Amino acid sequence: MQRTEISELGEFGLIRHLTKDLKTVQPSTVKAVGDDAAVIDAGGDSVLVTTDLLLEGIHFNLEYVPLRYLGYKAAVVNISDICAMNATPTQLTVALGISKRFSVEDIEQLYAGLRAACEKYNVDLVGGDTCASMTGLTISITCIGQAKEEDIVYRNGAKENDLICVTGNLGSAYLGLQLLERERVALNGNDNVQPDFKGKEYLLQRQLYPQARKDIIDLLREKGIHPTAMMDISDGLSSELMHICSQSGVGCAIYEDKIPIDYEAAVVAEQMDLNIVTCALNGGEDYELLFTCSLNDYDKLLALDDVYFVGHITKKEQGMLLIGRNGEQLHLKAQGWQAF
Amino acid sequence: MQRTEISELGEFGLIRHLTKDLKTVQPSTVKAVGDDAAVIDAGGDSVLVTTDLLLEGIHFNLEYVPLRYLGYKAAVVNISDICAMNATPTQLTVALGISKRFSVEDIEQLYAGLRAACEKYNVDLVGGDTCASMTGLTISITCIGQAKEEDIVYRNGAKENDLICVTGNLGSAYLGLQLLERERVALNGNDNVQPDFKGKEYLLQRQLYPQARKDIIDLLREKGIHPTAMMDISDGLSSELMHICSQSGVGCAIYEDKIPIDYEAAVVAEQMDLNIVTCALNGGEDYELLFTCSLNDYDKLLALDDVYFVGHITKKEQGMLLIGRNGEQLHLKAQGWQAF
Repeated sequence: MQRTEISELGEFGLIRHLTKDLKTVQPSTVKAVGDDAAVIDAGGDSVLVTTDLLLEGIHFNLEYVPLRYLGYKAAVVNISDICAMNATPTQLTVALGISKRFSVEDIEQLYAGLRAACEKYNVDLVGGDTCASMTGLTISITCIGQAKEEDIVYRNGAKENDLICVTGNLGSAYLGLQLLERERVALNGNDNVQPDFKGKEYLLQRQLYPQARKDIIDLLREKGIHPTAMMDISDGLSSELMHICSQSGVGCAIYEDKIPIDYEAAVVAEQMDLNIVTCALNGGEDYELLFTCSLNDYDKLLALDDVYFVGHITKKEQGMLLIGRNGEQLHLKAQGWQAF
Repeated sequence: MQRTEISELGEFGLIRHLTKDLKTVQPSTVKAVGDDAAVIDAGGDSVLVTTDLLLEGIHFNLEYVPLRYLGYKAAVVNISDICAMNATPTQLTVALGISKRFSVEDIEQLYAGLRAACEKYNVDLVGGDTCASMTGLTISITCIGQAKEEDIVYRNGAKENDLICVTGNLGSAYLGLQLLERERVALNGNDNVQPDFKGKEYLLQRQLYPQARKDIIDLLREKGIHPTAMMDISDGLSSELMHICSQSGVGCAIYEDKIPIDYEAAVVAEQMDLNIVTCALNGGEDYELLFTCSLNDYDKLLALDDVYFVGHITKKEQGMLLIGRNGEQLHLKAQGWQAF
C-alpha cells in the first residue's frame, strides 16, 4: 500500500484532501467545513459550533504555562472562533485526557482557568468529560454560539475595494512565546533561578492570557457596521488573509507600515534578531480579528478604538501583495502552521 | 501544596467534583452537565451537543482495530449519545491529533469510517480539524442533534413502578474485546499467524462495529411511546442504572434472568471462565439503550422487537437490587470505568 507522508500535504492540504467531496443532507446544515465554526439552523436563531484539540508538547508546554492560564486560553481560543463569525458565544463543553502525572489539584487549577474565561465572556460550561491518558494532557473544547442568520459573517464575502481591518496589534503573542522558550532553554531545569521578564510582561500576557475580541463584535453591532468577511488571527495575518482571499475569490494589498505593532514587541524582536513584520505576518496566536468592510463604512470605522486599516481588497488577478515602506511590492506567502 | 491522586476520586467523582457548583447564565442553556448531551434552546427546535475524546492506548488499540472501524465507532458512540436523548443526530465535527507514524492513507481510512457512519445515520460532517501529535492518535468528536423540547428524554424522569427496558443484548462487546485481547497476547507480534475467530464473528462485530439504536428511537416515536428516562449503555448496565436512579431519586429492581444475553456471548464467557451476568452488568460498550416507561405503555412495548423488560423502578429507600434466578437479592454496584 502506498504511503504518503502527511508533511507532503501539510495541515491545510490534509484537511482539504479529507473534506473536499463532503456533501450535506440535513436541511439544518447552513455552513459545514471551511470557516471558523459550523452553522446550524434549528428554526430559531442560528447555532454555531467550533471544536479545538490541544495536545501537550504540541500546543502547550507545561514547563512554562501554568495550568490555570492554560485552561483560560483553551476556552478563549474557542470563544474567539465564535466571535469571529460575528456571533455571541453561549456554551462550552470540555473533554480532558489526563495522565497519572496530574493530581486533582492540578485539574482544579485547569478548571479554574476555564471557568474564569466562561465567567468573563458569559459562557456556560455545559459538558464535562474526563478520561485517563497514557501520555500527558489532552484538552478538547467545543464552543457553541448564537446569532441571527443575517448577522453571521463568513470568510467568503470580501469584495473588491473593501477595506481590510485588524484589531489590537500583531506579533506580540509570538514574541511572548520566544521569550518563554529562550528562558526555558537558559534555565534548563534549574528551578532556583527565577527568569527576569521585567518590562516584557505585556508580551507574556499576550501569549499566556489572550483575549477574545468580543468587545469589538459588540462595538461593530452597536455602530451598525456589518463586515463583509471576518475571521480571527490564530495562525498569523498572512495565513488568514489567504483564507479570506481564496474563499472570497479576491486578491489583497496590505501596507507594511499600517500593520499595528506594539513597541515592546518591536524592541524584543530587535533584541532577538527577528524581523518584527515577519512576526506580525506569520507569528499567530494573537486572536485579534481580521475583517473586511465596505468603503461606505469608512467613517464609522475611523471612530472605533483599536481598529486599524491595513489595506484593501483587490481583483483576484493581482494576488496577495505586501507593499513595503518604500513602495516595493512583495507577494505574501501563507506559512500557516507546518508542525507535521 | 496538597496532592490528591485522581484515582482517589475516580472518573465520575472527579467530574462531580469539578462541576458541582457550576451555574449557568445564558437563557438558552436548557441542560448543562449531567446527561448524555447538553441541550440548547435557540428559539426553534432544541439543539443537543455531546463531545467525546478517544485516546490511543486508552480507548483503542490499533494492534487489532483497523482505522476504518475506529472511525466508524468514534462517530457511532457520539451519535448514540444524541439518540439516547430521544433526539435526531444531525451534524458532527471531528478533530484529530496525528503523530508521524500515520500516513495520509491511514487518515483516509479513518475518515472513510467516519463518513460511512455519517452516511448511515444521515449526519453531516461539518467541521474537520487536524493537528500534529507527539504520541499516537487522538480523536475528538462532537455530535449535534435536534429535537422538539417536549420530546427530549433526560436521565432524571424515572418514577416508581416504571418499567425498565433495554434493547438488543448486553455483554457481547466486552467479550469481543476479551477475544481480541487474548489473541493479541497469544500472537505477541507474530504477523504470520492469522487469529481464528470462526464462530465468534458476532462478538467481534459488537466490539469493533457498534451501532447506535436510532431504529429504536424512530420506533418509539412511531408507536407514541415517550420514555420517562433514557441513556445509552456505554459503561455497563449497573453504572447506567445508577445514573438514572440517582438523578431520578429512585431505586430499582432488575432480574438476572431477564437481562438479554446472546448465546454466543454466553459460550465464550464460559470458555474464558467469566461470569456472563457480570459481563452484561459491567462490560460496557454495547451502545444499547436503557430506558424507563410508564406501566401504561406496557402493551405497546410488548409489541416491539428487540426491546426487553429487565425490571422496574422502586422507591429510593429500596436501593438498587439485582434479583437472582433463585430469588436471592444482591445490591447492584456500579463499577463504572476506573482507568485512573
